[in-house]
Formats: sequence, structure tokens, C-alpha cells
Amino acid sequence: MTNSNLQYRDLHIGVFDSGIGGLTVLAELKKNLPNEKFYYLGDTARVPYGTRSPETVIRYARSCTNFLIKKGIKLLIIACNTASSFALDTIRKEINVPVIGVVEPGAKAVIKKTKNKRVGIIGTEGTISSQSYEKVIKNIASDIRIFPKACPLFVPLVEEGWTEGEIPSLVVSEYLTPIIEEGIDTLLLACTHYPLLKRTIKNTFKEFSVEIVDSAEETAVEVVNLLQSCNLMRKDIKISNENRIEYFVTDAPEKFKKIGNRFLKENIEYVEWIDIPVNI
Amino acid sequence: MTNSNLQYRDLHIGVFDSGIGGLTVLAELKKNLPNEKFYYLGDTARVPYGTRSPETVIRYARSCTNFLIKKGIKLLIIACNTASSFALDTIRKEINVPVIGVVEPGAKAVIKKTKNKRVGIIGTEGTISSQSYEKVIKNIASDIRIFPKACPLFVPLVEEGWTEGEIPSLVVSEYLTPIIEEGIDTLLLACTHYPLLKRTIKNTFKEFSVEIVDSAEETAVEVVNLLQSCNLMRKDIKISNENRIEYFVTDAPEKFKKIGNRFLKENIEYVEWIDIPVNI
Repeated sequence: MTNSNLQYRDLHIGVFDSGIGGLTVLAELKKNLPNEKFYYLGDTARVPYGTRSPETVIRYARSCTNFLIKKGIKLLIIACNTASSFALDTIRKEINVPVIGVVEPGAKAVIKKTKNKRVGIIGTEGTISSQSYEKVIKNIASDIRIFPKACPLFVPLVEEGWTEGEIPSLVVSEYLTPIIEEGIDTLLLACTHYPLLKRTIKNTFKEFSVEIVDSAEETAVEVVNLLQSCNLMRKDIKISNENRIEYFVTDAPEKFKKIGNRFLKENIEYVEWIDIPVNI
Repeated sequence: MTNSNLQYRDLHIGVFDSGIGGLTVLAELKKNLPNEKFYYLGDTARVPYGTRSPETVIRYARSCTNFLIKKGIKLLIIACNTASSFALDTIRKEINVPVIGVVEPGAKAVIKKTKNKRVGIIGTEGTISSQSYEKVIKNIASDIRIFPKACPLFVPLVEEGWTEGEIPSLVVSEYLTPIIEEGIDTLLLACTHYPLLKRTIKNTFKEFSVEIVDSAEETAVEVVNLLQSCNLMRKDIKISNENRIEYFVTDAPEKFKKIGNRFLKENIEYVEWIDIPVNI
């Protein structure tokens, strides 16, 4: 192990998302990687990515990536389903740091878990219409039948904090009944906001035996594997929670803190507002 | 009347919004001004404005304004409540064309209509927290009591097309019951998406006598008055519908056409995608 190797593995892990949703991925990473330091960038000036065109999402993802690369990172995590769907290949070609998105880990997990080979995938319009999960799944297991469904109201429900009760149950039922009735045994949450609706989804369809797969959890598993394989884990003693994550947003830091606490299940103390140019 | 005056009044009216919501304002303008030509710009790459900081909204509004000014317009309409709330004063100082927002017309209308001087105002978080309507109303009629309420789920409901039925009724009831119970006799729709929920709001609270005021309608009235006062109406024979509106968006023109048809109650044939720089 060289000295430069030692320095390199001490760098932060960079995580970006269109806004706060990626915090569900960060929460899993924190839990699984107690020695690592993170930069989290939420592109809140341009959120949501889910309704935008592929070209626009690629431009936004590139500007987020450039910011984190300049900070100095050893690994980049695109903690946003839409950006992973549209921009992962482009970003991988453009930078020298390994890149992990949320699509591949989620796709591989449902392939492992489904028994009847009928899988539901729910996400934003962008993620669903990109068919990114379908492409990865079909490439590995062409016999799996996929039932995709865009659920545009889930993100605003979660951001409003309406994750349990009559209204979220009805919205969940309205969107998911058609794909549950197709006999799926596995449901992939292909949006980082959706884990906060997991309990309501389970309760709404409790008489069906559907296993819920969460891309955030699966991504954290893949990150641990990669850091171990490449000998890139930090070896320090466990660092304190306060110092190990730095938060950046492109707009409205106070709102990010307020809603972010719900996603991260702990208080976010400080968020830095940054301006990043897009037309690059 | 000079020749240059004649040419000036033949120019288009420029209308911009963060996305499609401003089409409810355009629909009223079209109806009331059959001889006028319009440019409509929807800043769909940066929608929604309602959750962003004032500084960011001003930057976005300025870039939309600059685009329309370069096209050549005789009047600018900021058909977005959030941009009217945060950016109207700045834009008025920066350009030589008259500017009308949606806040002042809506505010003046509720002052005229309320009898018991108890008024509800509903809009996005940005509009409500800016207190822009309250400032205008209190300035003219300080004895009016205002009951404001942000309704963040209304815009995604409208964009999803869920404007009638059980879910929208429950969401309307959840948000509005507290302010209806305050005994308001007038409710101002301070968001351009909300007119599409007008019928559900009326039906949900049909046992209460609450008059609904729509900023889009009131803005059109103010535009007609201004054009008449300044002798800026076009005198041409009525022009055909196809040629008199040009649509521009900063992202996803196909989606704009699809959802926009519902807002405008007629087909949008062609939408041009444009790129406008923001850091100016």
C-alpha cells in the first residue's frame, strides 16, 4: 500500500441527488460505512429531475458531478433514479472516479428476490419512461415480466409529510392496485422518496404477499462491496457523526434541513448554499 | 397617433410562467383580447418556482423577461404567483415595458368582493410565505383579516389530471377546512393551477357561502384596462387563433403540449424548445 493510496482512500465519498430524496441512500451508507466521510449535494434549485428531458438531466448531473470532483472524492454515488437512468453512462465516461448509480443495485436485487418472475417497478415519470430498470433486468434475466408504473403524487406526498393516513392510502391504492392485480411478488421502489411510503404500501396490500425492494438499501450494499474489493475503505477509528457529512444545496438550505431531518432520521446541523453553473 | 406608436401597439404581449400554470391566465387574455398576439414562455426546465428562494426566483424571472424583451413585446405579464410575489418590483425597475403581475389584480378583487372582511388566500409555499397578497391587501384595506394557507399538493394533483373525485375532494378538505371554519366569505386562488380545482372546492364546501376569486380572470381585466388607457390595443381585424400565440418552453415541449391542452381548453399545435442562460 503506497502513501498516495492511503491518502486517496481517506477522501470523501460524493453523493448527489436532485434534492432531498438521496438522503435515504445516504442514511443507508452512513449505517453501513461508519468510518467514511461524505459530501452530499442536493440540486434543490433544479429539483425535480423526474419530469425533465434526458438532455436536461444530463446537463444538471454533469454540473453536480463537477462540483463534487473539485471537492475531491474517491467514489461518486448518483443517489437519484432519474439521473442514474439518464446520465450514469455519460458521467462514467467523463470522470476517473468510480461511479455507482441506484438503478443497477435495485435491478439486481429484484432479479434475486422474485420467485414467480413478475415484478412491479414504481418511480417518477422520468425513471419509468426511460425504461432504465427494465433494460438492466431484461439484459440479465429476459424471462422476468415487468409491470412499470409512474406515481407522480408520491414525491409531493412525502415532501408534505403525508406518509400515513387516509389520503396516502388512497393514492397508493389508486396507483398500485393495477400492478398488484397482475400478480407481482416483488415491488421495486425506484425512487429515493418512496421508502418513506413503505409502511403505507405494506398496509394497503397486506393480504398480498409482495416483497418490497428498496434501491437505497441495495445501493449501500454495492458501495460496501466496491470499497472492499478496491481496498478503498478508510481504516481510521470511527469518526464522530457531526464531522463526517458536509451538506451542500443549490437553493433553500433551511427547507432542506427541515424536510431532510425526516429522511435522515437525525438532525442536519449545517447546510451550505452553493451556486453551480449549468451550461458547461 | 404617430407611426411608431402604431408599430409599437402591433407588438406581441409577452407572458411567462414557471411552466404550464400561466396558461389559465393566457386563456383569460385570449378570451378578452381577440385582436392581440401573444408570446407564452414556460420555464419548464426550472419549474416549480413555488418552493425556491426569492433570490433564485428573481434570477429565473429575469432570464425569462430578457428572452421576451428580445423577441419584442409591448407589455409583459408575469403569469406566475411566485414570480409576481418575488420579482415584480425588480423586473419593473429593469425594463422599459409595462409589467403586470397576478398579485395586484387578485388582491384588489378580494377587497372589492368581501363583505365580512374575512378572506382566505391559498397558493404555493413560496407565494404564501412571501405574504405578497397580504401586503397589497393590508396597504389598501387594513381592516381585512386574512387567513393564508399553502396547499403544496394542489399543483401535482392538477398536473396529474386528478381534479375531481375522492382523492382531490379529501385533499381540498384537508387543506381548506381550517380556513373555511374561520368564517371567510371570499377565497382567493393565488396560484395559476388552482382554477382547475374550482369545481371541487365549490362542491366540497357547498354548504358554506364562499365566493371564489381567480387571479387569472382578474389579471385579464387589468390588462384590458391598461391597454385601453394607454391606447395600446391592436386595431386589426380579428386574427385567426392558429397564428396569434407562439409557445416557448425551456424543457419537454411534448409534455407541455399534452398537459397544456387541459389548461387552455384547446389544442396547442406547436411548442418551440429554447435554452435561456440563467446566470445573468
